[in-house]
Parts: sequence; C-alpha cells; structure tokens
Amino acid sequence: MKIALIGYGNVGSHLSESLKRAGHQIDVWSAREIVDCPDKISICIHSFIPEIILIAVQDKFVKQISELISEYSDFTGIVAHTSGSLSIDRIVSSRRGVFYPLQTFSIGVEMQYERIPFLIEGEAENAEESAGVVEILMKLAQTISGNVIYADSQIRKAYHLASVIACNFVNYLWGEAWKYLEDNGLRVDILFPLIEQTLRKAESGNPKDFQTGPAVREDLDIIDQHLEMLEDNTALRKIYQLMSESIMQDKLNNK
Amino acid sequence: MKIALIGYGNVGSHLSESLKRAGHQIDVWSAREIVDCPDKISICIHSFIPEIILIAVQDKFVKQISELISEYSDFTGIVAHTSGSLSIDRIVSSRRGVFYPLQTFSIGVEMQYERIPFLIEGEAENAEESAGVVEILMKLAQTISGNVIYADSQIRKAYHLASVIACNFVNYLWGEAWKYLEDNGLRVDILFPLIEQTLRKAESGNPKDFQTGPAVREDLDIIDQHLEMLEDNTALRKIYQLMSESIMQDKLNNK
Repeated sequence: MKIALIGYGNVGSHLSESLKRAGHQIDVWSAREIVDCPDKISICIHSFIPEIILIAVQDKFVKQISELISEYSDFTGIVAHTSGSLSIDRIVSSRRGVFYPLQTFSIGVEMQYERIPFLIEGEAENAEESAGVVEILMKLAQTISGNVIYADSQIRKAYHLASVIACNFVNYLWGEAWKYLEDNGLRVDILFPLIEQTLRKAESGNPKDFQTGPAVREDLDIIDQHLEMLEDNTALRKIYQLMSESIMQDKLNNK
Repeated sequence: MKIALIGYGNVGSHLSESLKRAGHQIDVWSAREIVDCPDKISICIHSFIPEIILIAVQDKFVKQISELISEYSDFTGIVAHTSGSLSIDRIVSSRRGVFYPLQTFSIGVEMQYERIPFLIEGEAENAEESAGVVEILMKLAQTISGNVIYADSQIRKAYHLASVIACNFVNYLWGEAWKYLEDNGLRVDILFPLIEQTLRKAESGNPKDFQTGPAVREDLDIIDQHLEMLEDNTALRKIYQLMSESIMQDKLNNK
C-alpha cells in the first residue's frame, strides 16, 4: 500500500521502517513543515497519492494536523492517528481510524514486530463503510504483526492506562533502583534474574498471588530500616512509603 | 555436605530441593519444634552431625533460633541465615555466616538455579577463620549457582533494598494493572510484549534514558484523563499521581 506517515519521532520512525520492510511504499512528511506551510499538503498528496495517512505526532498536535489536511486538501482516503489515549474523533475526516501499536519505542532499539499488539479502530459515514475502514487498517497491521485486535476508543484508553502503570511506572522504579545501586558502587545486573523471574511469575497468573517482600510480610522493622537508608532520597522514600502502605492495605482488603 | 535446614517456607523448601539435587545430604528441621522443644536440638545434631546449619525462617525468628542452638547444643560448625536484610550478627555462633539467594521464591514455581545470585558473608574468631567460613559457604553456593558473590551486611542490605523497589514494588504495579484490565473485562496478555521490551531496554542500559509515557512528555491532559478513569480506585489513583509527579520532577532535575 501507499502510506503517508506524518511524524518521525519514536513511533513514526519505527513504523516507517517496519512498514517498508513489509513491502509498503512509505512517504514520510514532517509535521513541522505541514504546520508552517500547509499549502504543501495538497502537493504532497497529489504527487504521492497515498491510500492512508498515518499521523504519528505528539498527542497535542494530532487534531491540528488532521484539520490542516482536511482544510488544505481534497484527500478522500483514510486518516488515522497512532495514539493510545486520543479518541478517534480527534481526526477530522470522513474516513478516520486509529492504528495504535501498544509498545514502547526508542530510536535505535530493535524489537520483535510480529508480537506487538496493534489496536485498530475505524469510522466512516455509515456502518458498512466503517467496517471497511477497520478491515483496511487491520489488514495493514497484519502485514507487520500477528497480534492485531479491534478496540474502540474506550477499550484502547483502558489498555493505555494499564500500560502506563505496568510499563512506564515500572521503568521508573527500575531507573531508581539502578541509580541507587550505582550511587552505592554496586552492580545492577545482580537484579536481572530476580526481575526476570518476577515477570515470568506475573505472566503465569495473578501477580497478587506472588507478592513477596517486607510489606506483604508486614515486616515493619525492615521497612523502617529501608526508609532510613533512603533518608537522603526524598522522592524515592515517598514512593517506598506509599507502595508499602498500599501493599499492606491490599493484603488487609483481600483477607 | 551434610546440611541441616531450619524452616520450610518459600526459601527453605526451594533451597532444600536444589541442595539435594546438587548431591548434598539435607535434614530439614521445623522451626516451631525447635522453639517449642529446644531440647531436641542436641539430639538432632548428634544424630545427623551437620557441617552447616542454615536458618531459613522469617527474619524476626532468626535471632531466637540461633540463640536456642547456641544454648542447647555444643555445635561447632557454621550457622548461617538466608535473609537479605539481617546483619550477620543476628547469629550467635563463633562461626557464623549469611547464605542469601537474591531471588523471589514461591512454592511450586520452578526456576533456573544456576543464575540466582548468592550473596555470601562469613565471620569467625579471626581473619583467617573468617575467610575459611566464607570459602565453605561460597563453595556450597557454587554447587547450585554460577553467580556467587561476596557481600558484607551493608552491601547485601543495599541489594535487598534495590530488589524490593525493582521487584516487589514492580510486582505490585503489575498486580494493579492486571486487576484494572480484568475489572474492565480486558486481556492481560496484551501487555506482555510491552513489558518484556521495557525489561530488555532496562537491562541494556539506563532505564531513565528509555522513560516513555505521558508523565515524561508532561502531557497533563492525558494524566488528568487517567486520574479521572481511576476515580473509584483511591489507592491506585494516589500511586498514579505520585509516580507521575516523581517522573516529571526527575526530568526537571536532570535537565
């Protein structure tokens, strides 16, 4: 397929690579250029003639870009964004969609595309045409991933929120643990087998059944000792306290 | 070697299995029986004649068990505990040690023992004998793991604190994310590729360099939307707020 991709950040650059590898023709357009010089949109569209325009820019610019496309061109193909948290109606187009890869992208970091879940949504003037938009976007996603599902905006937002908790916040805790070890001249790789095993257990069932550590044992001596060790680290100390309280409260609630 | 193991909880039962598999003779003693009937200690020691007694009980009982061994027997071998957070001096013995597997154990969950880091410490009446205790415990650990390091009590406590943050707290977040998805009738496995990729990135460098999500983008609209979605979940809402603030503050500090 011929796909125009707007935005070349973490998501855009990865999508461009993988779509090209799957045999699609990709034309990457700069979001800045479109905003600064919207007259170019029509020229771009008439020279490349894309079937789909994917908007892979920061959430706050999606609406503006989509409005410019609608205003400055007669494009009749599908316009879709790639965001986890924006409703489909941020796109101004008679055939609009969402093409959301639930993954953390960093430029230069390789990944297994075939496992990335793609959450797809589509909307047009009637039910039949909407189904057509969904089908086209799902087929496109299936050329790069074996894990494509339909999800409306509400479901997608729920997955996105869960991923912020299970991935972004978790990554922050790892960053803090790494920093603590490095500040103390210690090795971070010592923790890898432990973390990997924790993940294996979490994937095999309910993490709450596998909760270990001082908080779930209600070992207040150790918790106090740890809070003392974090005396100079106000931010982490606060997180330690709140997480321990939450784990203890959770245990109490489930008794 | 002949090893007496006191305690048959998560750590005790796993250690017993893996030490047996490595060819050691293991006699498991019940902590409760020792406390209720300390006269039995001497009988147990004289019938089994262990070279090492490993105390794998809850932290708060370690001191008491070790005192009973010292009081009710003439044992001259090594007495070691298996705790991450207790100082070596909780053991009352002229040859004492720590034999700490940095891992999360759950009864019935298999694991790769050869990768588990064992943190070893030893102490006796003089430097030479101390080194001897360390050597014996390290050799014992090496029969079940290829990842054995020496760590004094302070270093071990730092690793333990880091593991609480990077593993126990992380597991709690996963439990909350799973619960949120299940409460909304959604699939948890959708998140697995994302989490695995986050871990791969964290292990390849500094997680702080790979931080993604609304907080690090300072996307207050999405943060507000998420806080609203968590309106009925006071505990998770509080964590969401604190984690997001911490990530934003961290970014500010590192600018």
